[in-house]
Amino acid sequence: MTRHRLIENIRNKKSILCIGLDTDVQKIPKHLLDYDDPVFEFNKQIIEATHDLCVAVKPNIAFYECLGISGWNSLSKTMKIIPDTIFTIADAKRGDIGNTSAMYAKTFFEIYDFDAVTVAPYMGFDSVEPFLRYENKWTILLALTSNPGSADFQFLDSAGQSLFEHVIRKSIEWKSSGNLMYVIGATKASMLNDIRKIIPDHFLLVPGVGAQGGTVAEVCRYGMNKDFGLLINASRSILYASSGKDFALRAREEALKLVEEMKPFFQT
Amino acid sequence: MTRHRLIENIRNKKSILCIGLDTDVQKIPKHLLDYDDPVFEFNKQIIEATHDLCVAVKPNIAFYECLGISGWNSLSKTMKIIPDTIFTIADAKRGDIGNTSAMYAKTFFEIYDFDAVTVAPYMGFDSVEPFLRYENKWTILLALTSNPGSADFQFLDSAGQSLFEHVIRKSIEWKSSGNLMYVIGATKASMLNDIRKIIPDHFLLVPGVGAQGGTVAEVCRYGMNKDFGLLINASRSILYASSGKDFALRAREEALKLVEEMKPFFQT
Repeated sequence: MTRHRLIENIRNKKSILCIGLDTDVQKIPKHLLDYDDPVFEFNKQIIEATHDLCVAVKPNIAFYECLGISGWNSLSKTMKIIPDTIFTIADAKRGDIGNTSAMYAKTFFEIYDFDAVTVAPYMGFDSVEPFLRYENKWTILLALTSNPGSADFQFLDSAGQSLFEHVIRKSIEWKSSGNLMYVIGATKASMLNDIRKIIPDHFLLVPGVGAQGGTVAEVCRYGMNKDFGLLINASRSILYASSGKDFALRAREEALKLVEEMKPFFQT
Repeated sequence: MTRHRLIENIRNKKSILCIGLDTDVQKIPKHLLDYDDPVFEFNKQIIEATHDLCVAVKPNIAFYECLGISGWNSLSKTMKIIPDTIFTIADAKRGDIGNTSAMYAKTFFEIYDFDAVTVAPYMGFDSVEPFLRYENKWTILLALTSNPGSADFQFLDSAGQSLFEHVIRKSIEWKSSGNLMYVIGATKASMLNDIRKIIPDHFLLVPGVGAQGGTVAEVCRYGMNKDFGLLINASRSILYASSGKDFALRAREEALKLVEEMKPFFQT
């Protein structure tokens, strides 16, 4: 998907909501287990109930991979029913030496036809570059994550800057860095201001709203730019709002709450 | 596999060789394409030709993942024919927030029954801890990698130490850190000496011997400890020694050369 198209979709829907498909067989409503493919059925009903509210969908690859072949089948079927107007993100956090990253890029951009994939920065430019080569495909680099362990290394200071700032500053110098987006954990919303000074134009994928804490209003206030420039992700708070037969309806209600919180930022 | 067993296997075979199964359909001998599952057939012949020379085998997961379902099938079949005495490493470079890393750990330790998996450290302790929880399973944390991009972040200095040193020092404080091994790129063999001062006992997985440069003798000289403590990986130099029907034989010859270079370090 082009950047232009993504922005247009956001403008039309008045939403920067990304729904994370962290579909866990242990957590989905029990009545779905009667279906041939419970994971796909769950995803299908979630997508049908929320597709007009979200602009992006983010399957968490670990949840499919851990089911073996059947999980990859569920993922593949899910990708086929996501409307064209929705930006698709493989939350895979891959990254390896160049020839290997090229294989991961092929997997997610060609075989599963995702618009974007999340990538870990630790191994540096040649581990990211194979992803960046794809036109109109997006590489979402981990910068500041929302988990407790983010404090272990991402804030290490080197020459007056935290590691995550080095990751941002260095990566925007890479070839095709226009194809980069960044993961910025919402639990540190006040830092978005500083991050916007370094990357005013890039899109940020913000996890950590909902189950992990962080508010939509704060993220929008500090993170939005003239092209919106944000995708706010919520996973568990939407997916598992109910464990009953009303799960899709309740998921919609949760998604709607978040979209309502975004609305003030779409006034022109 | 227990540490004791791994050490015993090394002692018996007088080898610390790990063979990386970076099996690329584009690179394997053309006559194998007539088989139902060329990737599996290639792996099978490589393993049959080298199993007495290596103590570990390391499928590079990207190469299987990029083939979709058929790749995962080839991987699964490959795992079933690797002898019990060989330590198996999923070179997957995974790592995500806790509940997601738990899924990745399940995938590689339970579904595919690997002895070890490579993990990226960027997201900190809760992204690694789910892997460490498995008894007699091993988490091989990226510290210093052998690719050009390793210079981008791994050498950033913070309080007098490089990032990769912080990764090592911090991670050995984590619960169950006895289940850790570390990736240390062989192109920096002289640094092994310094690294051994921080982690005298842990096993190191050393890539970058062979196609990526670095010598076995240097790695052994600086990296070996009383329990050997090293696994030296070679992938392309062994797998693709020949593109003809003699590929397995030639692979054996390449493996044998490396084992010969290791021999002097097994004198008692």
